[in-house]
Amino acid sequence: MHVAIPLYPRFTALDAVGPYTVLAFAPGFTVTFVAGQVGPVPDDHGTLRIAATASYADLPAPDVIVVPGGSGTFDALADEALVAWIRQAHEHTRWTTSVCSGSLLLGAAGLLDGLPATSHWAVLDELKKYGAEPVSERVVTSGKIVTGAGVSAGIDMALTLLGQASGEETARSVQLMIEYDPQPPFDSGSAKTASQAMMERALSLLP
Amino acid sequence: MHVAIPLYPRFTALDAVGPYTVLAFAPGFTVTFVAGQVGPVPDDHGTLRIAATASYADLPAPDVIVVPGGSGTFDALADEALVAWIRQAHEHTRWTTSVCSGSLLLGAAGLLDGLPATSHWAVLDELKKYGAEPVSERVVTSGKIVTGAGVSAGIDMALTLLGQASGEETARSVQLMIEYDPQPPFDSGSAKTASQAMMERALSLLP
Repeated sequence: MHVAIPLYPRFTALDAVGPYTVLAFAPGFTVTFVAGQVGPVPDDHGTLRIAATASYADLPAPDVIVVPGGSGTFDALADEALVAWIRQAHEHTRWTTSVCSGSLLLGAAGLLDGLPATSHWAVLDELKKYGAEPVSERVVTSGKIVTGAGVSAGIDMALTLLGQASGEETARSVQLMIEYDPQPPFDSGSAKTASQAMMERALSLLP
Repeated sequence: MHVAIPLYPRFTALDAVGPYTVLAFAPGFTVTFVAGQVGPVPDDHGTLRIAATASYADLPAPDVIVVPGGSGTFDALADEALVAWIRQAHEHTRWTTSVCSGSLLLGAAGLLDGLPATSHWAVLDELKKYGAEPVSERVVTSGKIVTGAGVSAGIDMALTLLGQASGEETARSVQLMIEYDPQPPFDSGSAKTASQAMMERALSLLP
């Protein structure tokens, strides 16, 4: 199972690396970071660079795509090469997935029209622009399209996907390997229970 | 607050990028990836490369260090430059932290003698070699040393640290920004409740 994760300037690191780590540990999976050109791509803080080792032209038909989000998503919506690659790859994929604002890129590629999908809470309503039905859930599956909520939700999305792709026992073994028994010290991860002031404070952190 | 994350060949990506993403979003924090030499460092699957932008010599006295684990930890224990940098940096840090088997590197640097610490479940007992008291908990704080359990525990560790460093409200705002409201699709993340067969299956995934 060949997984491609497209990187674009100012992606959010954990959006890409959460699913990457889950799927890279899965038996029979190979993950490749892909971009317009081979080479390092900077994240939204400009301090992390992950190397893309293939161009879009090198990898036209992966089995799975995982589109990350980030502050750079809005610029990436105008990146014709990226959007065209997503649209074209989707014709061949077994699964087409996103994390965070990455779902807007699936929308821009025309893949979400009439479908339920999720995204980061701050941009969830933007999905309507692409004819999608915004759903405030952690992971939303609609046929072969699986979208995850913000940033850290990519881990839950990838484990859900892996359970479908390789069976529950394999997904459980990867969960144990990455010791994913989350115990957040605070209970502030959901916008459903956050105050307006806390949401504004969170948004002020955007780079 | 200057955070340094040392990278060595065959680190586990999420060990480094979980805490990185939490701390990079925190106001007043700057995170630098550091290694023996500036340049890309491959992870344990050989498919992800993160660029180190500073050498150990460039960054002798960061405020915080976060030492990741990975399949490469056992080779890294013999990396004198890395172990010496950890030992020397610790003299100046406000916090010295690790994720996963990264705690063995703190041990090798002589920092854990007589102290409680945690690690990935598969190597927890190895901590005894360094005089540490292995504790099977998600995050263990002992003075200025904070150790986290396996891989994904780095997110919980970093939020705990951020709560101490910048206050609970700031940590909560970062948690909301990264939408860290975990909902694993399975309940298999803890070795405390795993069968022997499942533990063996998980260990077979090690690259």
